[in-house]
Amino acid sequence: MENGDGNEGTSAFHVPEWMQIQFADQKQEFNKRPTKIGRRSLSRSISQSSTDSYSSAASYTDSSDDETSPRDKQQKNSKGSSDFCVKNIKQAEFGRREIEIAEQEMPALMALRKRAQGEKPLAGAKIVGCTHITAQTAVLMETLGALGAQCRWAACNIYSTLNEVAAALAESGFPVFAWKGESEDDFWWCIDRCVNVEGWQPNMILDDGGDLTHWIYKKYPNMFKKIKGIVEESVTGVHRLYQLSKAGKLCVPAMNVNDSVTKQKFDNLYCCRESILDGLKRTTDMMFGGKQVVVCGYGEVGKGCCAALKAMGSIVYVTEIDPICALQACMDGFRLVKLNEVIRQVDIVITCTGNKNVVTREHLDRMKNSCIVCNMGHSNTEIDVASLRTPELTWERVRSQVDHVIWPDGKRIVLLAEGRLLNLSCSTVPTFVLSITATTQALALIELYNAPEGRYKQDVYLLPKKMDEYVASLHLPTFDAHLTELTDEQAKYLGLNKNGPFKPNYYRY
Amino acid sequence: MENGDGNEGTSAFHVPEWMQIQFADQKQEFNKRPTKIGRRSLSRSISQSSTDSYSSAASYTDSSDDETSPRDKQQKNSKGSSDFCVKNIKQAEFGRREIEIAEQEMPALMALRKRAQGEKPLAGAKIVGCTHITAQTAVLMETLGALGAQCRWAACNIYSTLNEVAAALAESGFPVFAWKGESEDDFWWCIDRCVNVEGWQPNMILDDGGDLTHWIYKKYPNMFKKIKGIVEESVTGVHRLYQLSKAGKLCVPAMNVNDSVTKQKFDNLYCCRESILDGLKRTTDMMFGGKQVVVCGYGEVGKGCCAALKAMGSIVYVTEIDPICALQACMDGFRLVKLNEVIRQVDIVITCTGNKNVVTREHLDRMKNSCIVCNMGHSNTEIDVASLRTPELTWERVRSQVDHVIWPDGKRIVLLAEGRLLNLSCSTVPTFVLSITATTQALALIELYNAPEGRYKQDVYLLPKKMDEYVASLHLPTFDAHLTELTDEQAKYLGLNKNGPFKPNYYRY
Amino acid sequence: MENGDGNEGTSAFHVPEWMQIQFADQKQEFNKRPTKIGRRSLSRSISQSSTDSYSSAASYTDSSDDETSPRDKQQKNSKGSSDFCVKNIKQAEFGRREIEIAEQEMPALMALRKRAQGEKPLAGAKIVGCTHITAQTAVLMETLGALGAQCRWAACNIYSTLNEVAAALAESGFPVFAWKGESEDDFWWCIDRCVNVEGWQPNMILDDGGDLTHWIYKKYPNMFKKIKGIVEESVTGVHRLYQLSKAGKLCVPAMNVNDSVTKQKFDNLYCCRESILDGLKRTTDMMFGGKQVVVCGYGEVGKGCCAALKAMGSIVYVTEIDPICALQACMDGFRLVKLNEVIRQVDIVITCTGNKNVVTREHLDRMKNSCIVCNMGHSNTEIDVASLRTPELTWERVRSQVDHVIWPDGKRIVLLAEGRLLNLSCSTVPTFVLSITATTQALALIELYNAPEGRYKQDVYLLPKKMDEYVASLHLPTFDAHLTELTDEQAKYLGLNKNGPFKPNYYRY
Amino acid sequence: MENGDGNEGTSAFHVPEWMQIQFADQKQEFNKRPTKIGRRSLSRSISQSSTDSYSSAASYTDSSDDETSPRDKQQKNSKGSSDFCVKNIKQAEFGRREIEIAEQEMPALMALRKRAQGEKPLAGAKIVGCTHITAQTAVLMETLGALGAQCRWAACNIYSTLNEVAAALAESGFPVFAWKGESEDDFWWCIDRCVNVEGWQPNMILDDGGDLTHWIYKKYPNMFKKIKGIVEESVTGVHRLYQLSKAGKLCVPAMNVNDSVTKQKFDNLYCCRESILDGLKRTTDMMFGGKQVVVCGYGEVGKGCCAALKAMGSIVYVTEIDPICALQACMDGFRLVKLNEVIRQVDIVITCTGNKNVVTREHLDRMKNSCIVCNMGHSNTEIDVASLRTPELTWERVRSQVDHVIWPDGKRIVLLAEGRLLNLSCSTVPTFVLSITATTQALALIELYNAPEGRYKQDVYLLPKKMDEYVASLHLPTFDAHLTELTDEQAKYLGLNKNGPFKPNYYRY
Repeated sequence: MENGDGNEGTSAFHVPEWMQIQFADQKQEFNKRPTKIGRRSLSRSISQSSTDSYSSAASYTDSSDDETSPRDKQQKNSKGSSDFCVKNIKQAEFGRREIEIAEQEMPALMALRKRAQGEKPLAGAKIVGCTHITAQTAVLMETLGALGAQCRWAACNIYSTLNEVAAALAESGFPVFAWKGESEDDFWWCIDRCVNVEGWQPNMILDDGGDLTHWIYKKYPNMFKKIKGIVEESVTGVHRLYQLSKAGKLCVPAMNVNDSVTKQKFDNLYCCRESILDGLKRTTDMMFGGKQVVVCGYGEVGKGCCAALKAMGSIVYVTEIDPICALQACMDGFRLVKLNEVIRQVDIVITCTGNKNVVTREHLDRMKNSCIVCNMGHSNTEIDVASLRTPELTWERVRSQVDHVIWPDGKRIVLLAEGRLLNLSCSTVPTFVLSITATTQALALIELYNAPEGRYKQDVYLLPKKMDEYVASLHLPTFDAHLTELTDEQAKYLGLNKNGPFKPNYYRY
Repeated sequence: MENGDGNEGTSAFHVPEWMQIQFADQKQEFNKRPTKIGRRSLSRSISQSSTDSYSSAASYTDSSDDETSPRDKQQKNSKGSSDFCVKNIKQAEFGRREIEIAEQEMPALMALRKRAQGEKPLAGAKIVGCTHITAQTAVLMETLGALGAQCRWAACNIYSTLNEVAAALAESGFPVFAWKGESEDDFWWCIDRCVNVEGWQPNMILDDGGDLTHWIYKKYPNMFKKIKGIVEESVTGVHRLYQLSKAGKLCVPAMNVNDSVTKQKFDNLYCCRESILDGLKRTTDMMFGGKQVVVCGYGEVGKGCCAALKAMGSIVYVTEIDPICALQACMDGFRLVKLNEVIRQVDIVITCTGNKNVVTREHLDRMKNSCIVCNMGHSNTEIDVASLRTPELTWERVRSQVDHVIWPDGKRIVLLAEGRLLNLSCSTVPTFVLSITATTQALALIELYNAPEGRYKQDVYLLPKKMDEYVASLHLPTFDAHLTELTDEQAKYLGLNKNGPFKPNYYRY
Repeated sequence: MENGDGNEGTSAFHVPEWMQIQFADQKQEFNKRPTKIGRRSLSRSISQSSTDSYSSAASYTDSSDDETSPRDKQQKNSKGSSDFCVKNIKQAEFGRREIEIAEQEMPALMALRKRAQGEKPLAGAKIVGCTHITAQTAVLMETLGALGAQCRWAACNIYSTLNEVAAALAESGFPVFAWKGESEDDFWWCIDRCVNVEGWQPNMILDDGGDLTHWIYKKYPNMFKKIKGIVEESVTGVHRLYQLSKAGKLCVPAMNVNDSVTKQKFDNLYCCRESILDGLKRTTDMMFGGKQVVVCGYGEVGKGCCAALKAMGSIVYVTEIDPICALQACMDGFRLVKLNEVIRQVDIVITCTGNKNVVTREHLDRMKNSCIVCNMGHSNTEIDVASLRTPELTWERVRSQVDHVIWPDGKRIVLLAEGRLLNLSCSTVPTFVLSITATTQALALIELYNAPEGRYKQDVYLLPKKMDEYVASLHLPTFDAHLTELTDEQAKYLGLNKNGPFKPNYYRY
Repeated sequence: MENGDGNEGTSAFHVPEWMQIQFADQKQEFNKRPTKIGRRSLSRSISQSSTDSYSSAASYTDSSDDETSPRDKQQKNSKGSSDFCVKNIKQAEFGRREIEIAEQEMPALMALRKRAQGEKPLAGAKIVGCTHITAQTAVLMETLGALGAQCRWAACNIYSTLNEVAAALAESGFPVFAWKGESEDDFWWCIDRCVNVEGWQPNMILDDGGDLTHWIYKKYPNMFKKIKGIVEESVTGVHRLYQLSKAGKLCVPAMNVNDSVTKQKFDNLYCCRESILDGLKRTTDMMFGGKQVVVCGYGEVGKGCCAALKAMGSIVYVTEIDPICALQACMDGFRLVKLNEVIRQVDIVITCTGNKNVVTREHLDRMKNSCIVCNMGHSNTEIDVASLRTPELTWERVRSQVDHVIWPDGKRIVLLAEGRLLNLSCSTVPTFVLSITATTQALALIELYNAPEGRYKQDVYLLPKKMDEYVASLHLPTFDAHLTELTDEQAKYLGLNKNGPFKPNYYRY
């Protein structure tokens, strides 16, 4: 998962301008190895998602002031290996406990371990991965290992690594190169250490954001000769792959797991329904009952936010640009307004559009005292935070992730996470959601690795609907849910295979 | 709308077996002009939808025992015309009032009248229509008239005509041929009277179920030379068109308005959310609070039923065959079970699957006393009602549309509408939903009639998304809803045209 | 139940002015035996509730034009008895079926029959009753009979009798004197026939509205010497009893069952939550989604209406006079407004206040076209309907219980049930709610009849909380609900008796 | 607020056994001045609420390891005063900011400052207070000061003081004696320092738990000669006062603000609706969707928990001992079960009963792996946590307030806050709720201080309903809520004063 993916508002499926620009930048910068000196000019050289700040919950035990760079440390795990680079190998035990807790809520991966273990479907696979390094990722990596794969792993975000988990993985023998608070130089160095190894060459890529893929692309293009496929998780990374494909430069099959139904519904509707409440509560301890809220955008994310707040007794207004989504908002019981109509009266403004400058300085000027402003949409462009960095306004950091921006007349706006994604910055993503993503990734890797010659060409593929359905079915036991099977007669009547797929591709769910 | 469309459960997008069979039957029988004598053998000769019984509300004033066939009556409207055939022209005034009430809730059509009237976009259009004849259809017809079209109209269902409305249309000069309780011979006679006219030949077809289209196809194939296109409303009719197209026999462009987003969401989710309550209440006066309900199928219809009943305090269980929909049910707070697990304990069983024999005799045998059984899905196959027609069970008609089926031990099952669609039989479809459908039909007619040569070929087309969005936008004023417009900068950022379409075709809403 | 009780808004517990006036009128008029000639002057001589129109569902089979007064007919039941007066004894079979259906949803009374039958706790009781005569009342009467009582019964409302049910009761031997459409003279004649019988004198009174009680009070005061107590059901009747008590004129104990917790919650919150939807749907077939609604009054009735409409996707505003209820509305997610603020924009206005002139002509003048206006509160005073009976406005009856009031500029207001109670006029009360009321009445009768000398004095009593709890417990099996029992240790810890009562009297539930 | 009040389940209004015992203990121990040596024997000498652990959020900045007791420190505020004892006066600035934030959400107190300031209704009042010391309390204290009162303050709980806030109060001149982590000796020392002052004697008491009152009672009984009244906030303290009153030992009027309507509804229903989600999320990061939950007790707290979890997509079961509450649960859509019926299948167990041993070791043995167990009810007795402290079970502290209890077969139960109140331990109480409490306290102080001789006797009084309504009305502007005023005509019709009170005391809201 990348900061921002899974959270798009109503127009996320188009190629946003910033992606195009970013991608252009990316290409220019890619060949330069970033150095500390070159930092400023390189600030666009890793994807935006790689530098977004991440959950405040992203560390459990770090109170030490150990300033030594992990790159300068000599560490060994208990088996004597030093093929890793983490913050502190001694934190392994704490991390192991977190992994064990995560395993409890990732039954699908555990089931996959059991079902597929006999035949080791990933025997021979050498997977290089670049994702957030969390307890849930650890469960994925250990599942891949149990299925026969060898793995090397780096972080896709310089802030998101849980050091304890990285230590636990290193301790149990995974070559992990990641820590919280990497510099950009560190970032690329870690990726390079995963790829550029004596006597080991990856044949599968699991990427989240596309940085790993591009590093190999630019530095070690010959590696692709042995690579069987790429599995990509994020909006940004998927977009990069489509660009490569269009340009005729994609030289292996790639699987877009971002757009699978299950992932989309869980990352957006179901997850945001809970995380909007959590994020607001943890940062402000506010009461929802009776509050007036405007939600900008009624895509899946907006739908989730609106449903949750309505259920808690808030009065919710919606803004939309798309008449169909607008009509849905009406039928779901929300007043559809322009932001200007309600901006003076609302207690909370939430953006979920995927658009830019949805909340402008003019809006901010008109908000009432104590209005809370936050972003649940894509990237950090929705609120024009830059416009608040002017001399007449005072910023006051009142808590972690909470700023008061103070007008000359004393009016305060409560800005959360500086306009970055509230749910990633100020709440946590439930393991169950990550389980769905991780299971999807594992299945995509198995599919690509085992696919007979010719099934996949040098193109970007969506996960087959049958696999989407399989991911869903692996998660049903969590709820003690019992699926009904079609009888032969019914299957014939409906013209369906009894094992699915049960819907055409355009079904809307 | 056809009885049954708009209500499919999770697998409605596949071609059901019965359609294939029906279509085959249809072809065999089509050339025969049905006669009263041949009734039995022709019982399959009009589409199932044409003979389904319709809402109990389908008459306002008929208490007379006038048994004379309208075909045998001599009637004239106040302007002296007798180019129509309705039950009783004297009922026109009552019908006119119903039309005026309907106009209040169909602002989109009224807006269309205003916006397009200046240029008369249907000037020269000669439209032959075959739909349910209700107050809402009347508003559509009079809108088409106001836009310049000439119309002739028959009913697509032998029971659904509102005689008073038909009278009002005849009185104001529309050649309408329809009454409630037509025989099958009457049915085809009426259609023929619309088409087979001295000195008038249709150039557009508006069909609901496909019977009109096929009548012309078989009897007057040469007419297609002048016909510019077909607009088809129903699942069944659309399926027939795709069959024709596949067989290379479709000789004009056709527009499938059934699958437009707006129509789908309103016909299914939003409409069923209300009509399940209405249908149950009107037939049984039951209280929803605390009742245990099992809903079979968690497609759009099932989602609507579940949401409504949960909100009223029922405890709802769901059955599903599709793991993705099943997972949605879980996340929405419903226990996913097999029907057998709960059949002994539930107070109400509701089918919304589009499947057949979902509720079998075995299930019915195990239900508890007073259990209510009804169908909100497609067609009348979901509950195996036939299995209840056995000597040991006693049927008792306790109210209109309500039967008690009594077991030898005294147990009673309350069967609603004999297993046919509850919402069409026992409640009414809100005018607002019909407004969306009617507006879609009007726009499709305008598009096909005005399309430049070559835009549409001899194929079946979906309504362009932009038109879907336009239909939605025409309905927003009803809710005093204010759409936000993209700025130029935002449109560029998102890569969108400011006027839409705003989403790719695969967007799920 | 009386038309109007159970539906009070936030200030129903005070003595409304109209009651005081009515009661004064009542006393003046009581000694006059109404005659047909004196009708007009006597129009206030029976309680308002006795003349309110009742549900449109109040007849099943009456299509005959039999204009003969039942008082002029000679009828016998199959056993030869003619000690009854009903519309048509031949309708008994239909009525019996309705009674049997009602029995299915009144398990508490059926359980009472079983539990108490052995000892016949009402053996020797001679009960004279005056209530609505419906299938549910019939189940109550037959339960009282099964428990040993003899009963004679009249109707408490001149419109609400179901003739078929009355016939069924007469057929099975109950002396019933009631039909739909009684004149006022008939009304008192029927009551008198129940009381004034050779060789039979009542010792218990079950009243709904207080008319029976007052008839005995004025005409046969000596009867009270043998009467053990009065059970009174309605707000009005209870008020009359308190007045008598205050005046020192109450000469037997009386039980106020109107204010029992269970009855209050079910008659108001739970029942109105469903009946508001049902009443609106049956009269207007409107769609709730997206509609703007203002609900005046946030007492139990208002809470029920608001919750239901919000769940169906309406946008709901609330008006209140009481700041505590107002704050509850806020916390439940409703904008608290003054009626004037939203009157121009709402689609529906619903009154639930118990107050008068809440909706004034001025408000009605400002409503938008097609606005629906209805009353769910107490009595028919909330909407100033009288102000609409002016020459410049046209009334048009469009359906039963639905009037269009048309302004000179063409604007139409849709007025339901002429401002009388929507839920009694346009929907039905679920049997389950009536079951709770009837069970409470039966228990109150048993208690008063069996109470040892001295337990009750010549005063008005509330039902003991323990009985409220018993009524509730008798209804739990309907929901297959399993109550937890306190352990001895827990009961001691909480200072409670294991069998209840579990709460102090002031507990708010 | 005391740990546990505001959260009672269905039987909270009775006097629980433990209170009686505690009170007995209290009396025995009260005369002994606790010493550090005597700690163990004194463990019952302050009320349970005083030693309960408090929110994990109860500190903002304390990372220092300053182990010096505040009693041993020499501190002065910037004005040179040293009449206070807090952790660190230098934290004042941070605390001031927190107070300012709290002021934003306590508009009622701010309004009170404005409205009453002119006349200084508390001029001459010398208030000694003993409550939790939080930002919200600070707003209350500074309001009392603005109204003319002098205040001295101690903490009612040894853990709940926010040191920064205490510092800010001390800095602005309030004699505050409190810090987080007081010993019991410290606890009484602080209280004594508030009371036992040269040249200053309190004439009003504001207490939360009754410890302050009892200290004065035992040590300085003569003080009561000048004391005009006591305002008591907590269940426990109120109970103590009633005991004193019964025993004829209460020598001043006391106001029970715990049972005011507004406080009850907010502390229980509305607050718990939000805090159950917050508490579960912060401790476990779990997803609510699809989870099976059993809630024990359907009082106000249980109702809040159930509503919130249902809204988030959980499947909720309820247990109850009271048939009326049970029937409410049914009508609200929850299966009513005995705990045993569902204990094997649920994912979460929540107690809200006010009872003891609701969840026993036997239940815990049967729970499934990973089941979460927590308590939202009164005190810490509901879950039999003691039964889990046996050798065969392993306890593992996985996070703050989260223990895994591990069975020999590896099964883990997730126990939150060791069975203490989840909402106080693991979430925060919204300022708005505290605002209602604090406003109620302020009004009660004003009332008692200004009441004419004879209005209040030496007894315990409930807050007059009119004041409850006034508290509510002061909070309406927060929601921009507009109350409707009765016309003269309406007030007369309803028999009400236009300014309230609007309801009789027994109204249930």
